[in-house]
Amino acid sequence: MNIQNIIKQHHLELLFQQGLFGIEKESQRVYADGSIVTTEHPKAFGNRSFHPYIQTDFAESQLELVTPPSKTLDDALRWLSAIHEVTLRTLPENEYIFPFSMPAGLPAENQIKVAQLDNPEDVAYREHLVKSYGKYKQMVSGLHYNFQLDPAFVQALFEAQTEQKSAVDFQNDLYLKIAKNFLRYQWILLYFFSATPTVDENYFRNGTPLQPNQYVRSLRSSPFGYVNDPEIKVSFESLQAYADSLEHWVNSGKLIAEKEFYSNVRLRGAKKARDLVKTGIQYLEFRLFDLNPFAPCGITLEDAKFIHYFILLMAWLDHTADQDDVELGKTRLAEVAWEDPLSPTTYSVEGELVLLEMQNMLEALRVNDDIKTIVKEKFAQFANPNDTLCANIIVAIKKFGGYQKLGADIAKGNKKNASERFYALSAFDNMELSTQALMFDAIQKGLKVEILDERDQFLSLQYGDHIEYVKNGNMTSHDRYISPLIMENKVVTKKVLAKAGFNVPQSVEFTDIESVVKNFPLFENRAVVIKPKSTNFGLGITIFQHGVQNRDDFAKAVEIAFREDKEIMVEDYLVGTEYRFFVLGDQTLAVLLRVPANVIGDGVHSIKELVEMKNDHPLRGDGSRTPLKKIVLGDIEKLQLKEQGWTIDSIPPRDLIVQLRANSNISTGGDSIDMTDQMHESYKKIAVEISNAIGAAVCGVDLIIPDSAKPAEPHLKSWGVIEANFNPMMMMHIFPYAGQSRRVTLDVLKMLFPELCFK
Amino acid sequence: MNIQNIIKQHHLELLFQQGLFGIEKESQRVYADGSIVTTEHPKAFGNRSFHPYIQTDFAESQLELVTPPSKTLDDALRWLSAIHEVTLRTLPENEYIFPFSMPAGLPAENQIKVAQLDNPEDVAYREHLVKSYGKYKQMVSGLHYNFQLDPAFVQALFEAQTEQKSAVDFQNDLYLKIAKNFLRYQWILLYFFSATPTVDENYFRNGTPLQPNQYVRSLRSSPFGYVNDPEIKVSFESLQAYADSLEHWVNSGKLIAEKEFYSNVRLRGAKKARDLVKTGIQYLEFRLFDLNPFAPCGITLEDAKFIHYFILLMAWLDHTADQDDVELGKTRLAEVAWEDPLSPTTYSVEGELVLLEMQNMLEALRVNDDIKTIVKEKFAQFANPNDTLCANIIVAIKKFGGYQKLGADIAKGNKKNASERFYALSAFDNMELSTQALMFDAIQKGLKVEILDERDQFLSLQYGDHIEYVKNGNMTSHDRYISPLIMENKVVTKKVLAKAGFNVPQSVEFTDIESVVKNFPLFENRAVVIKPKSTNFGLGITIFQHGVQNRDDFAKAVEIAFREDKEIMVEDYLVGTEYRFFVLGDQTLAVLLRVPANVIGDGVHSIKELVEMKNDHPLRGDGSRTPLKKIVLGDIEKLQLKEQGWTIDSIPPRDLIVQLRANSNISTGGDSIDMTDQMHESYKKIAVEISNAIGAAVCGVDLIIPDSAKPAEPHLKSWGVIEANFNPMMMMHIFPYAGQSRRVTLDVLKMLFPELCFK
Repeated sequence: MNIQNIIKQHHLELLFQQGLFGIEKESQRVYADGSIVTTEHPKAFGNRSFHPYIQTDFAESQLELVTPPSKTLDDALRWLSAIHEVTLRTLPENEYIFPFSMPAGLPAENQIKVAQLDNPEDVAYREHLVKSYGKYKQMVSGLHYNFQLDPAFVQALFEAQTEQKSAVDFQNDLYLKIAKNFLRYQWILLYFFSATPTVDENYFRNGTPLQPNQYVRSLRSSPFGYVNDPEIKVSFESLQAYADSLEHWVNSGKLIAEKEFYSNVRLRGAKKARDLVKTGIQYLEFRLFDLNPFAPCGITLEDAKFIHYFILLMAWLDHTADQDDVELGKTRLAEVAWEDPLSPTTYSVEGELVLLEMQNMLEALRVNDDIKTIVKEKFAQFANPNDTLCANIIVAIKKFGGYQKLGADIAKGNKKNASERFYALSAFDNMELSTQALMFDAIQKGLKVEILDERDQFLSLQYGDHIEYVKNGNMTSHDRYISPLIMENKVVTKKVLAKAGFNVPQSVEFTDIESVVKNFPLFENRAVVIKPKSTNFGLGITIFQHGVQNRDDFAKAVEIAFREDKEIMVEDYLVGTEYRFFVLGDQTLAVLLRVPANVIGDGVHSIKELVEMKNDHPLRGDGSRTPLKKIVLGDIEKLQLKEQGWTIDSIPPRDLIVQLRANSNISTGGDSIDMTDQMHESYKKIAVEISNAIGAAVCGVDLIIPDSAKPAEPHLKSWGVIEANFNPMMMMHIFPYAGQSRRVTLDVLKMLFPELCFK
Repeated sequence: MNIQNIIKQHHLELLFQQGLFGIEKESQRVYADGSIVTTEHPKAFGNRSFHPYIQTDFAESQLELVTPPSKTLDDALRWLSAIHEVTLRTLPENEYIFPFSMPAGLPAENQIKVAQLDNPEDVAYREHLVKSYGKYKQMVSGLHYNFQLDPAFVQALFEAQTEQKSAVDFQNDLYLKIAKNFLRYQWILLYFFSATPTVDENYFRNGTPLQPNQYVRSLRSSPFGYVNDPEIKVSFESLQAYADSLEHWVNSGKLIAEKEFYSNVRLRGAKKARDLVKTGIQYLEFRLFDLNPFAPCGITLEDAKFIHYFILLMAWLDHTADQDDVELGKTRLAEVAWEDPLSPTTYSVEGELVLLEMQNMLEALRVNDDIKTIVKEKFAQFANPNDTLCANIIVAIKKFGGYQKLGADIAKGNKKNASERFYALSAFDNMELSTQALMFDAIQKGLKVEILDERDQFLSLQYGDHIEYVKNGNMTSHDRYISPLIMENKVVTKKVLAKAGFNVPQSVEFTDIESVVKNFPLFENRAVVIKPKSTNFGLGITIFQHGVQNRDDFAKAVEIAFREDKEIMVEDYLVGTEYRFFVLGDQTLAVLLRVPANVIGDGVHSIKELVEMKNDHPLRGDGSRTPLKKIVLGDIEKLQLKEQGWTIDSIPPRDLIVQLRANSNISTGGDSIDMTDQMHESYKKIAVEISNAIGAAVCGVDLIIPDSAKPAEPHLKSWGVIEANFNPMMMMHIFPYAGQSRRVTLDVLKMLFPELCFK
């Protein structure tokens, strides 16, 4: 089979480049000085028996972060970044993630605990490793790169060739070709991506093999790293031979299990190599990679893309490595690993030839220029070893005062960066903040998250066989469909609530200006609110707090309301303060007071300066990528100031609250203040009853309450409900401007997955 | 208290005119000849023990149609019309509603059955009436007009006056004033609205009191009509006196119960008159009115409005009638009732004086001109008795060949009219047809219907304490909120269905034109559908049924799809016929095939003529007020014809189907064909499983099936699901162009009210 010709003739270029990608990344939890922690895996990460994202590897201190299989590398790396953010923000304050594969600051061996997993077999396996290799060697971390060709590509290729009759055998041959060629040429990737020039000096039981001041490309891939006994040789000639030889070593007791065979390529798709013969190899796991300490997640997107095309090249090549080639490749890997990172490699000619082949392939596949640029830069590193990652690390080690110190500094920087926008999940920053918060919680607790539609904020969450779909962070299967439909329509909401016996301000609806104005006498001298039937953000609303005084003002307000809707309401105005109750099921989880945009005088700064200072608050921004919005000194604010006798340059006296807006919306710079603990319980109960009456699972109930300290009484003077909101904003409760944070997204998850234990 | 001054000074003019209105209308079921039926009350009307709209009065043949209390007379009459439509369309084919109050074609007394009610007391009461009055007298029907002043008006009036200290007493005094003045002047309404000039000659037990060819204004209100023994006198002086005298007659055995007192005004608000003293009179029931045979519902809107202002006048007048005045009024009523309808009334001077007062009131209240016009017309009838309703009836009786014949003809005409637009509920014709159908069923079965928002198709349905809210006819509490959100998004729907293991055509989503076109090789030669992610009505969809042949066509189709949405899908095209499965809960209730607009040749008519003939079908219209849409011969249709070698003037041969459209939407003139019985059960089961997987209670599932007679197989060649729709159109199943009607709205009601027995 000439794979290149088939791809060209059958226009399979795009299909060839598609596939599934997954990253697993091990790393040590460390203290601020870079030394490995002796604490337990944090309980906040839920249960490791099912956690799909945050696991432990060998040691209790050794995190293993796992991305879900993703259709693009961009997505895989977004997941890796998100999982990192969740992990870093969840770690105790004094813990960090070490950025290097080789450990530093190793504790005494007896202080290293193997991972405390639920399954006793998993623990036993780790105890065996301790006996065979010692604990220190097991503390090495790496990055595993999983790749599956698009099954449609394999199928198309199979149909286009004639030699192989069995589809499964064809698939196995194809993956074996990639595996063998990869093992043959893996040293090239090592040359570019190696990043373990040195290690903690305690690491070696029998004294360090490194000369003073000696650096190598990859201690991890060297015979002193994390490798099997050289005696263990496994054949890649055929899947049959592979299974035979692996079983031989297990049966002879040299390996405790097949998974103890640390090949840089693992054939995946079944638990036992023998089963692959029938089921077929489903994907390959490439385990060669040292953590890149300069990449916050251990690998850059560019490098990940280079690796992808390198893997494709292994399939694309005309020839397939045989077992001798494989062994040659392994030897060459060990040699290159021990080279001086600042010198050229012995095998640069071979490396350049392979990259030339790669460039030919890229031409044939008509890939984008960005890929070509990446390859060109790597190519140049054969001539300039100082540009390799490893060379850069050596420079940094010297500059930052040693290996452990450099690692600790990077670790601290990474944690600081990951916490900067603490209210967001940066990798999914084009989704709404509340969906980001829900995803954060789901990743932390180990629910499987799948993004069904990113623009539409549509998630699937899964625990075992239990699937729940969530839209916009709180729209779920627990709400009855009619509930949001009721809440969407203010008139219907009021009728339903009034029917159920709640205190609702009286109102009349109108569909034309004339009949409202004609009915002016009905409203004369009454305190009323004129509002469109169904708009939001306070548009079109006029409040006659002290009664409608004349027909012209009334007509004007009516006209403004009709600009927003075909139907308007004239509603009795309720005296009191408006509070937002966040109700979930049978509980009011949070109560919030929204205060119109304002600044507090200090007798020194002008209003303009006070606004600038207030806008510096980390929660304030554009209001969509941040929980709160910066105050804008626009026309409305200036008018509001003018009415109070101020300009933006006035300096208000100390402690005077200068109101900049009449409306309290967060979207116009308002403050959110948590009042959950201050609110009398009786109102929280009423909010729950209102939500239940509408049949909502999650509901934002707006109550007007004149005195929130006094218990609720049954009449409209004690409280009135003015609105019920489905899909209520959750961010303002999670990150209020003042008062306690209420992590309501976690409560949504608890509602959806009551069987899951949340700690 | 000077009520006129208070109203003027406190701007209560509008509030005075507000209130609640309700109509109860009795009438006899009759055969085509106008003779009273001897059949049972139809089972289709559900159970009379709770039916709020369709009851029986004295006899099993005597319908009592009851409107809900309505804020406007327009609404009350819409309800009355709707209840009539439901009743008329539900009656057996040979039964009608007699339009006169006085019966005709009376059967032998022993064939008249009293209403077979569940409550034995109700039946016993009727048996007592038989003994006291005979059956024939009980067969008289009337129209009762219920009116409640706006409680806010009564409250405002109470607050503005100083004489009366108790609010309840004040309210009782006010209603008593209206009652007494009404009884004093009721003869005026009789003069205008009386409509019982004669009766079936069998009606009188002891021979007719009418001279040959004598007509009177109102037999019903005369001493020969439906009145108590003249001995029974009840005092209206005070509520106390009223209760005392009523109790006296009951205790003495002259009345079996208080309700046997047939006053033309009943004080309502409690079961016993005595209780009214404490609870207060809540509203008044005016029982004076004969059925207007010319009004399809027994009363016109104009007359109802006149009566409203007449009642208001009774409150407005400076004076309050005393008991002598009441008795005078009753005597005068009897006199006017016996007058010759074609002659002026003896009391026209008093009548004109009262109407002058009324006109003064209307000026003071600044009412619209339409009311003034109505009053002016009535005023003129004092001078022109020939213009009264009764005079017109006499003309018609003569013209149509007798009383019974006239009644029968009108009855048949009313039923025909009510059935003309059999798919609609005319009074609520600005709502969607499916909501009209649901309301029809709910009214028929006796669920209390409340329209919460007419524009928004929002209903409340109630049976006992059980309330259900329904929007758009099928959006209910039974759907989970997440289900419609899933269905709204085609990409998410597909992912969810694929996850659940259903046959879904493969697809790829794109957000920009460039990347689709770049991926052209992925789709080359593949049969695909290119469509926007979330639009309806088939906009922006291109089908490459025989594979994408060239890049330009492909790019063009992509561009068209992007006009409709920011995101598009390229989906594998499935070969087969598309069917719509209407699923409710665990059942596929209907299967529909939609056929593109077409005509069938007859070898005689041109295509244009054939279209006109097809458009005459009663179901075809504008498509919103009718279940099907008329075919329009526009550009697309002409192009489609041209491709087949036709013009609109061509005459296609007999039985040739000429296709006028490529798409099968009903909205472009397509035909709907019920296939429920023809479809293999296995596909109906799959549709249910799909609906369940999404968590929908009501769902329209679109399946592509190559051979609907063969059982479903598990692969995509046997069937594929292309869409799931929430709020699926119900009308096309209820009124298909061809095949059996499926009354799915009734199934929605059964789902919502499983406790209700549907016959």
